[in-house]
Amino acid sequence: MTELTHFNEQGRAKMVDVSEKNETVRTAKAKSAVSLNNDIYQQIKDGTNKKGDVLAVAQVAGIMAAKNTAQVIPMCHPLSLSGVDIEFQWNVDQGHNHFEVLIFATVKTKGPTGVEMEALTAASAAALTIYDMCKAAGKEMVIGPTLLLEKTGGKSGDYSRS
Amino acid sequence: MTELTHFNEQGRAKMVDVSEKNETVRTAKAKSAVSLNNDIYQQIKDGTNKKGDVLAVAQVAGIMAAKNTAQVIPMCHPLSLSGVDIEFQWNVDQGHNHFEVLIFATVKTKGPTGVEMEALTAASAAALTIYDMCKAAGKEMVIGPTLLLEKTGGKSGDYSRS
Amino acid sequence: MTELTHFNEQGRAKMVDVSEKNETVRTAKAKSAVSLNNDIYQQIKDGTNKKGDVLAVAQVAGIMAAKNTAQVIPMCHPLSLSGVDIEFQWNVDQGHNHFEVLIFATVKTKGPTGVEMEALTAASAAALTIYDMCKAAGKEMVIGPTLLLEKTGGKSGDYSRS
Amino acid sequence: MTELTHFNEQGRAKMVDVSEKNETVRTAKAKSAVSLNNDIYQQIKDGTNKKGDVLAVAQVAGIMAAKNTAQVIPMCHPLSLSGVDIEFQWNVDQGHNHFEVLIFATVKTKGPTGVEMEALTAASAAALTIYDMCKAAGKEMVIGPTLLLEKTGGKSGDYSRS
Amino acid sequence: MTELTHFNEQGRAKMVDVSEKNETVRTAKAKSAVSLNNDIYQQIKDGTNKKGDVLAVAQVAGIMAAKNTAQVIPMCHPLSLSGVDIEFQWNVDQGHNHFEVLIFATVKTKGPTGVEMEALTAASAAALTIYDMCKAAGKEMVIGPTLLLEKTGGKSGDYSRS
Amino acid sequence: MTELTHFNEQGRAKMVDVSEKNETVRTAKAKSAVSLNNDIYQQIKDGTNKKGDVLAVAQVAGIMAAKNTAQVIPMCHPLSLSGVDIEFQWNVDQGHNHFEVLIFATVKTKGPTGVEMEALTAASAAALTIYDMCKAAGKEMVIGPTLLLEKTGGKSGDYSRS
Repeated sequence: MTELTHFNEQGRAKMVDVSEKNETVRTAKAKSAVSLNNDIYQQIKDGTNKKGDVLAVAQVAGIMAAKNTAQVIPMCHPLSLSGVDIEFQWNVDQGHNHFEVLIFATVKTKGPTGVEMEALTAASAAALTIYDMCKAAGKEMVIGPTLLLEKTGGKSGDYSRS
Repeated sequence: MTELTHFNEQGRAKMVDVSEKNETVRTAKAKSAVSLNNDIYQQIKDGTNKKGDVLAVAQVAGIMAAKNTAQVIPMCHPLSLSGVDIEFQWNVDQGHNHFEVLIFATVKTKGPTGVEMEALTAASAAALTIYDMCKAAGKEMVIGPTLLLEKTGGKSGDYSRS
Repeated sequence: MTELTHFNEQGRAKMVDVSEKNETVRTAKAKSAVSLNNDIYQQIKDGTNKKGDVLAVAQVAGIMAAKNTAQVIPMCHPLSLSGVDIEFQWNVDQGHNHFEVLIFATVKTKGPTGVEMEALTAASAAALTIYDMCKAAGKEMVIGPTLLLEKTGGKSGDYSRS
Repeated sequence: MTELTHFNEQGRAKMVDVSEKNETVRTAKAKSAVSLNNDIYQQIKDGTNKKGDVLAVAQVAGIMAAKNTAQVIPMCHPLSLSGVDIEFQWNVDQGHNHFEVLIFATVKTKGPTGVEMEALTAASAAALTIYDMCKAAGKEMVIGPTLLLEKTGGKSGDYSRS
Repeated sequence: MTELTHFNEQGRAKMVDVSEKNETVRTAKAKSAVSLNNDIYQQIKDGTNKKGDVLAVAQVAGIMAAKNTAQVIPMCHPLSLSGVDIEFQWNVDQGHNHFEVLIFATVKTKGPTGVEMEALTAASAAALTIYDMCKAAGKEMVIGPTLLLEKTGGKSGDYSRS
Repeated sequence: MTELTHFNEQGRAKMVDVSEKNETVRTAKAKSAVSLNNDIYQQIKDGTNKKGDVLAVAQVAGIMAAKNTAQVIPMCHPLSLSGVDIEFQWNVDQGHNHFEVLIFATVKTKGPTGVEMEALTAASAAALTIYDMCKAAGKEMVIGPTLLLEKTGGKSGDYSRS
């Protein structure tokens, strides 16, 4: 006799249905960072890295990664992004030998779901690109913390990290 | 009269030539982490997240991201990976309300360049996937620090983070 | 003299224009199956496959494939999917040595074209993933039949396989 | 006190290490099929399908899918394919109203793992493409059975479906 | 003391915000060409190229490239295309030993940005595919000029190359 | 009675078998160009384009496209590239109102097939990116001619355009 048994549904992965959500303008801003050594700091500032202009390449990588987010994050909904902007800021304390590049990724869409993941993915890809281009001068770089700074739009309302 | 002027070459991006490098077995192990709240911790442990088994999906995301690294990191060389393994570890201190999932990504190849970027990218993608699946229960999660623990093989020799 | 001759238009491939179609909610449900041997059945049930939890990985593969359908099927229109759900069911008759896992993929969108291809592609990718993870224990597995069970929405109306 | 607990390793997904495997020439041949109605049969034969030459497009889709296999099947190793060939054969019995196109995908590589998945994925993508281009003339098409006909090379030796 | 310095914003790359733009029907038509020798011309006409039907494959490549444009052009917005059509025309003057295949790519969407890049990318991919399939019979082929013939829709209005 | 008829093999597309070819170092250098107006020329030189540093972004796009060639060109073999370098040169004749940026893409691999397509694809993607970033200031830009300058390695020997 044939037995038809359902696979245990608990824990089953799915991309949840968002067809009832409204298409509204939504933004998200994420932050990441890369801590690096003085040599790498000088390389980036002076444009002497042999692989190219580190922050310029990282910006492009971040923007392209934002557009590709739903292909990397399995349960993330695909969205047509309206805009992506990536900024860098140096946080340097030479006296304490602290060199850190901060990464800010802002993403905007008009769609049914938020763009937190796109902003976080963009910031992460930019950070990884910085690591890749500079690793010949020091593998001790540290990426992060990577986090969401703020979001607007959507049913859950605006959010701003306290 | 026509003037032929070279574009300023300083800072020019390129994928550097590695055709002289030997094909050897190389490994890299990277670490990332996601700090989260008690509710999310319980959800993951109990398998009650409505998007699915969080760590199982994050593993798959990390492995697929490792294989896709050279499509995300612009100056990174494409490599045929021989193996990818992703492990998780809970670092929990209930008394101090500390809940953190550690992510370890180990990548292996037989090729002309190292797999540091593949390991770091895999760990980052796994972390982003955890964030995505749990963000409905708290957007204050923090990803990182993401760093290289060790690598073996290649001309620059073995490396182990001190 | 120059002769300008048109390429024979008969049989010419194109992605047909759907800009006049209305954006409505559409769903599709497809089914596939993998017939396998008793050893593989036990492996999946007991979680002893050395590549991992077979059905959990297959679910993720199916969901990601659904999102990537228009990159695989040349004349298929790109769509932003609202939801994807993949279920498994065992159809086992030990007495007759019949072991089969059924795969059901349900896809939803709000868009100008249907999601039959996304559902069929998701079911196929899940089936291929099961094959891949289990092939060390038997290459005689058979995938299919893969077919459309039902669809809703769109000008051609609802469809249910009889 | 902090407790460090390992995630349950049973069932953990991984892309298994193949760095010890030899690079040898390997081939695989897979088969799929699409059962369709008389109208669709005539459309394909006469080249009157409004989306284009069905089998020509399906061939291209299958070849491109073969090259993309490791991006779709999560635990599948990336390989540089040396050759892909896709053939079609009509299996028609007008008297019994049976119309079926058989799909044969042959893949070759020189690498550490076999190409069964590439052949099966190519055949599946070709079948899905036929379905997509013909579905306006009948949604009852059935894809499959999809199976491995033979493989050569590798430690496990040659295989031929009996 | 920590100094927080902003990265020089001049020249910073970004995907500009289009969330205020209206979703309207937009079309674009681009043209490219491949100049080739008599042998290649005969091969294509007679269908004797050993890699297949050159123009049929080029059509599929162009259509798939159109859908993938925003993954190739970094600052290009992702769009869900409604239609893509690629036509070829022979421009041959045997007396002057001139053999040229013209490529016309027409793309349509209903969205916030135009589809010029999609049309230009489709035409370029079709041209590159022709080059690839015919290069064994002559590497002196020349691709281009590639240009925009016309566009409709959008705030900047219609455009037709004079 | 069932009739088994072979699909007409003439013109059938395939990715030809290269498993017999030797893995050797191979290089290719391709050239493309974009003709543009004085305003665009000034924008690029002065870094005042609102989408960013045009040539820096185009370089990254070209390098990433080189790595993705086999996903765009259907019958092109996948290759692990060892190096990609993209250079620009201004060809300007103000007196005759001629402004043109030349693009040179050099690609290197150690593999069984040449990298002509990778070089041509990289140059094309860089040209398309320049078009995209500058099109707000003039849609009459012309891309091309795109052609192969030279190649080395492989059975067919070295080639240099005369």
